[in-house]
Amino acid sequence: MSTDSALIVDTVFDLDALLTEEERGWQQKARAFATERILPVIEDDFENKHFRRELVAELGAAGFLGMHLQGYGCAGAGAVAYGLVCLELESADSGWRTFVSVQGSLAMSAIYKHGSEEQKQHWLPRMATGEAIGCFGLTEPSGGSDPAAMTTTARRDGEEWVLDGAKRWIGLASIADVAVIWAKATDSDGSTAVRGFVVPTDTDGFTATPIDGKLSMRASIQCDVTLEGVRLPVDAVLPGARGLSGPFSCLNEARYGIVWGAMGAARSCLEAALGRARTREVFGEPIGARQLVQGKLADMFVEYEKGVLLALHLGRLKERGTLTPAQISVGKLNSVREALHIAHEARSILAGDGITSAFPVMRHMANLESVRTYEGTDEIHQLVLGRELTGIAAFSSASVA
Amino acid sequence: MSTDSALIVDTVFDLDALLTEEERGWQQKARAFATERILPVIEDDFENKHFRRELVAELGAAGFLGMHLQGYGCAGAGAVAYGLVCLELESADSGWRTFVSVQGSLAMSAIYKHGSEEQKQHWLPRMATGEAIGCFGLTEPSGGSDPAAMTTTARRDGEEWVLDGAKRWIGLASIADVAVIWAKATDSDGSTAVRGFVVPTDTDGFTATPIDGKLSMRASIQCDVTLEGVRLPVDAVLPGARGLSGPFSCLNEARYGIVWGAMGAARSCLEAALGRARTREVFGEPIGARQLVQGKLADMFVEYEKGVLLALHLGRLKERGTLTPAQISVGKLNSVREALHIAHEARSILAGDGITSAFPVMRHMANLESVRTYEGTDEIHQLVLGRELTGIAAFSSASVA
Amino acid sequence: MSTDSALIVDTVFDLDALLTEEERGWQQKARAFATERILPVIEDDFENKHFRRELVAELGAAGFLGMHLQGYGCAGAGAVAYGLVCLELESADSGWRTFVSVQGSLAMSAIYKHGSEEQKQHWLPRMATGEAIGCFGLTEPSGGSDPAAMTTTARRDGEEWVLDGAKRWIGLASIADVAVIWAKATDSDGSTAVRGFVVPTDTDGFTATPIDGKLSMRASIQCDVTLEGVRLPVDAVLPGARGLSGPFSCLNEARYGIVWGAMGAARSCLEAALGRARTREVFGEPIGARQLVQGKLADMFVEYEKGVLLALHLGRLKERGTLTPAQISVGKLNSVREALHIAHEARSILAGDGITSAFPVMRHMANLESVRTYEGTDEIHQLVLGRELTGIAAFSSASVA
Amino acid sequence: MSTDSALIVDTVFDLDALLTEEERGWQQKARAFATERILPVIEDDFENKHFRRELVAELGAAGFLGMHLQGYGCAGAGAVAYGLVCLELESADSGWRTFVSVQGSLAMSAIYKHGSEEQKQHWLPRMATGEAIGCFGLTEPSGGSDPAAMTTTARRDGEEWVLDGAKRWIGLASIADVAVIWAKATDSDGSTAVRGFVVPTDTDGFTATPIDGKLSMRASIQCDVTLEGVRLPVDAVLPGARGLSGPFSCLNEARYGIVWGAMGAARSCLEAALGRARTREVFGEPIGARQLVQGKLADMFVEYEKGVLLALHLGRLKERGTLTPAQISVGKLNSVREALHIAHEARSILAGDGITSAFPVMRHMANLESVRTYEGTDEIHQLVLGRELTGIAAFSSASVA
Repeated sequence: MSTDSALIVDTVFDLDALLTEEERGWQQKARAFATERILPVIEDDFENKHFRRELVAELGAAGFLGMHLQGYGCAGAGAVAYGLVCLELESADSGWRTFVSVQGSLAMSAIYKHGSEEQKQHWLPRMATGEAIGCFGLTEPSGGSDPAAMTTTARRDGEEWVLDGAKRWIGLASIADVAVIWAKATDSDGSTAVRGFVVPTDTDGFTATPIDGKLSMRASIQCDVTLEGVRLPVDAVLPGARGLSGPFSCLNEARYGIVWGAMGAARSCLEAALGRARTREVFGEPIGARQLVQGKLADMFVEYEKGVLLALHLGRLKERGTLTPAQISVGKLNSVREALHIAHEARSILAGDGITSAFPVMRHMANLESVRTYEGTDEIHQLVLGRELTGIAAFSSASVA
Repeated sequence: MSTDSALIVDTVFDLDALLTEEERGWQQKARAFATERILPVIEDDFENKHFRRELVAELGAAGFLGMHLQGYGCAGAGAVAYGLVCLELESADSGWRTFVSVQGSLAMSAIYKHGSEEQKQHWLPRMATGEAIGCFGLTEPSGGSDPAAMTTTARRDGEEWVLDGAKRWIGLASIADVAVIWAKATDSDGSTAVRGFVVPTDTDGFTATPIDGKLSMRASIQCDVTLEGVRLPVDAVLPGARGLSGPFSCLNEARYGIVWGAMGAARSCLEAALGRARTREVFGEPIGARQLVQGKLADMFVEYEKGVLLALHLGRLKERGTLTPAQISVGKLNSVREALHIAHEARSILAGDGITSAFPVMRHMANLESVRTYEGTDEIHQLVLGRELTGIAAFSSASVA
Repeated sequence: MSTDSALIVDTVFDLDALLTEEERGWQQKARAFATERILPVIEDDFENKHFRRELVAELGAAGFLGMHLQGYGCAGAGAVAYGLVCLELESADSGWRTFVSVQGSLAMSAIYKHGSEEQKQHWLPRMATGEAIGCFGLTEPSGGSDPAAMTTTARRDGEEWVLDGAKRWIGLASIADVAVIWAKATDSDGSTAVRGFVVPTDTDGFTATPIDGKLSMRASIQCDVTLEGVRLPVDAVLPGARGLSGPFSCLNEARYGIVWGAMGAARSCLEAALGRARTREVFGEPIGARQLVQGKLADMFVEYEKGVLLALHLGRLKERGTLTPAQISVGKLNSVREALHIAHEARSILAGDGITSAFPVMRHMANLESVRTYEGTDEIHQLVLGRELTGIAAFSSASVA
Repeated sequence: MSTDSALIVDTVFDLDALLTEEERGWQQKARAFATERILPVIEDDFENKHFRRELVAELGAAGFLGMHLQGYGCAGAGAVAYGLVCLELESADSGWRTFVSVQGSLAMSAIYKHGSEEQKQHWLPRMATGEAIGCFGLTEPSGGSDPAAMTTTARRDGEEWVLDGAKRWIGLASIADVAVIWAKATDSDGSTAVRGFVVPTDTDGFTATPIDGKLSMRASIQCDVTLEGVRLPVDAVLPGARGLSGPFSCLNEARYGIVWGAMGAARSCLEAALGRARTREVFGEPIGARQLVQGKLADMFVEYEKGVLLALHLGRLKERGTLTPAQISVGKLNSVREALHIAHEARSILAGDGITSAFPVMRHMANLESVRTYEGTDEIHQLVLGRELTGIAAFSSASVA
């Protein structure tokens, strides 16, 4: 793909004018990282199902890990700056943006929001540098859309918590140093609540097995996690979280990153298609001279621009502290859905060679299927928004009451 | 439709937070006008093909006519304020937003941008109040997408210009006091250029006949105009415009208003569907409790919000003076296309009663077909954007060179 | 629209080869009727909300009324022949195909399937000629999708039935001679069931009022019907129907006609767009030379052909006696949805003049909104099919059990 | 995926009733082959980019290779029977249907239609058994949509033909025994025409290199082929083909197989989604109880059924000998486009596990991208049909004349 195509996509709408100089700085740093560190190796890593762990420290050094958090070695950047970094990283590969999301928006965010000062001091600085990798265990094998059906338990046994259960689709778990595990916890007084636990992954009874057979996000790791009599000290619990609002607040952080990130995959696809359209000649002229190709490019571009405007609007709301879950749902739904649609259209413009790794589009298409599912399917987000609009929950037949 | 529905649509995304107090003032004034002056009569006027001329002076009194122009009795409001007024008026009926566009963005704008000081002094103040109605004659019977094929001519005969030709789809022409007519003009020195002429409509040889049989924008007027030996004094020509850039600069003003306006029609449809979904009970529950209905509402809402965000982005670019024709094309394409899609979806939620004038949706659907066509079809705007992206013009086989 | 366009649409796929000579005869007769008797007047009738009653006898003379029934003066034609007639009539206007459906597939079919021999002898011959007009009263003001919520009642008072209640969206009721009214009937022994009653419309207490303000199917009549103490002799009840399967069997007959009919509206729109594309010149060439226009035409055509193939498949199943309600739901869903989509695309090709009655497309678009709603919305049919596929009823939260 | 789902998809529309017993026999044999021989190994082969050559002889033994040809060891089956086999094989993997297409519809068909009796006797029987594998060299690196731009040449040198040039995306070339190569041939009398040559792949100067980096059809082989001074005896030319109509007649054979085949991939995706919807429980009920899921399933099903009906219609036309290239274009366009859409929708229903090889959907999605491109992109087929409808060729700006 030509530099020209990238420039055009970036400039037609003059979105840069809406960014601060600091934000543009983050954007450029992330774009350079994506271009120089990820793109040269990503096709091989995707083919070989290889997570290139050595990049983690580099991401940390660049300040991308937990970058929106304050203190504890974190950069304290704004929501838009963080979003731009997500976009640029995902323009290379969804797996690497996912890594940053799991590390910064899920694991670090959980400790940051709900942890004790000791937990923060112990974990956040080394997670910010990438020395320690974190993961986030919420989803269970029975399905991600209904965390209330959680079966993993934590019970008190003297001065210890004992965790039992299973989690699935847990990003990075097999290479993580620490896991934030959510469980239905029964305290010594018999009270129960969903609570989070900081679990060093070398604790006995904690096992993480990478899920095999993936045809999406192959340069990334997702695991099955089993917890069999995992014994933790009393202070392993996150003191600040009781109930599902605890993990949900982290999911919303992660979803916010997806709103931006998916647009990065979309831009990469659009650039690939545009570059091909400008240079590939058939019937004696560039295919970009054909109306049917221009029509597709125009429609892809319009949705890309709207997606970025929406992400930016959400970012500004987040910076003002007013961003709501329903707004994030709209953003996640839109960004991933439109990114997938852009990827499909881009693929159709590339023709034959476009099915190979000479172009990033097949890989983005495959990756985005994971992104579409995790952190809430289209349907879940439609129904979150539907509830906001109608006042009626319709997630299941039981929920309409 | 319930006030609730309107409030929800407006507030879910907190767009108001992006507006200045002055902008919200214009918005409220226009909303009140739409609600109090247009909505109570519009269904009858649509049915009876009646243009309610007495509202013109009220629109003038409210400051909506030429409101984005400076001086000459015009309000000098910003681009976003003007856009908001377009949105609110079109939430009542596309015909009335079209009136404001033709008067302010086409006729007044042509005189304002390209006219002599005398022309401005003479016409703009009375057009701003609505005392005088203007129209804009560019499109010809052979088709609107290719103004370069213009056949209307102006020739010098001593100290007079003589105009001959025909125009079609000229809004308001039969009730206008003044027409800005574009013609291929041959000057006394033999030089030729497309030029604009200020033509009092009582000039001999000027005839305007309303187009009959319309099933869209029936509360509005579009005309066939014939010019047979229309004699004008030398100073009837707009001194500032030579070539198609003259009328095109006005079209871009009008398109800008459509970007906002069409979202008004969309909001009205969305509100109608949402109100119905919340109150209409079938199978013992509101239809809004059904997932398939919530899914539609959610998708409509997402596109509405993105459309408004795009309009707002364009408005801010316009206020900075950097708005480009390609950006406007994107906006016009998106707003009308999505508004139509929203209207179709809304219609499907209303069920039986929704085919009557008890709901505004059938009317908006019909109106938007006009709006989709005028000021550039989808295809033209896709190709404008396609040219921007690929560097290749593909409007016709001849244009690919 | 040119004859050329019609011929091309009909011949590209060689569908005629799948028809018998007798079927082609019916098709040609109906096409001639549509062309000669309906098209010349339909734009005026639509504009003026005029049902041209004098055509009813002509439809009867042509054999179209109850044409799929055997005996009693009916033609006894096959299901495909009947479908072809529906297609051709609706290519002129949905209102006239609706008339034939209400008369033949609802009112006559109810009497034919469920009536006594006396009822058949009395009503069917005169309904077949068009001497008597029938209507079918099932839907109530509270909504058409859930007939089980019916509130109209019939009770025994000695040797009489007494009907009370209200119906809505009852086609032709204000001009009908006879109404088949469905009510929750309580017999003299106290047993209750939904039953049908043959009600002469001049019976005291029967009132039908045309619904005003329609922006769709304006050349047709739909009514509110009130039944206030309507007294009928004991033998007014249809002996063969108990429960909702009675009216449902008639609805399926009517839906079958829609499967074909909507494709007629689609073909008319496709022909209009194709004719325009071949003749309208912009930028120095027919707009049909533009790829974006050809792409639309191709897609419209593909869906038209598939819709007709599906209708034909259902017709052959019906002739074999194996057509199921779920199959009809698929057909109704598909035909109307695709016809609407074709109408929208066609409209966009017609440009300016296409918003007038010079082309039938705005009218078809408006009409099809009624057709989309009546006899089951898209959602209802999706859920009928969804139930067939999954084994789970999901019409409402209550139905998932 | 459950057997139930498969049965339901097959039976709802009663398509079997349209088949002869012999056709159902072929269908069952192919379904058994797909289920028993391909499905157990295909996920591994796709992952490992392995073409399982040992299946070729089994396909031959089953009679699938060149099965629609008469004599020479071929089965002489009808077009519908052949289509059903394509559907069943592609329900397992597009790569294996592609193998059958390349072998039977391209390579064997070229020799059968255009070859000498000696060529037929020599090659067809061993190709029918799978003893010899054939390939078909038409597309060149500069793009497949415009074969008229062919640069491969054949020139006479005494009693030999000498071929030079390069081909790309040539299925099976690296394992083929024989290649049918199309070249611009200049005969000894100086006359030139596109002609086909039967090239044993062990001829000096013939080199085939598998294309690497594929993310689609990985269990299949496509190659770059170079021809450097490839010397062939005079009788290597196909005597019956001069001009592009020669290879085009074979492409149409292959496209016909795609029309059916792509529906096989679609059915597999639909079955997977349906099976998952019926068994996967979230929020305490199968996800198939959710309206939004049923809506998707219903829409997928409708398009599947229409696609099969269209394929069947084309098959019957082919059996009557009247199938036209434009009709095939419609079929190829529709089947692949809708199959891809069904695959995307199915993916969204499978949620997390659906990105793994536990379900066939990601693989079908990826494969169909190849199928969408080869044998003509969507745009090419839209324009083929557009030309048929409008009478105007619009493939490029040069073609509009």
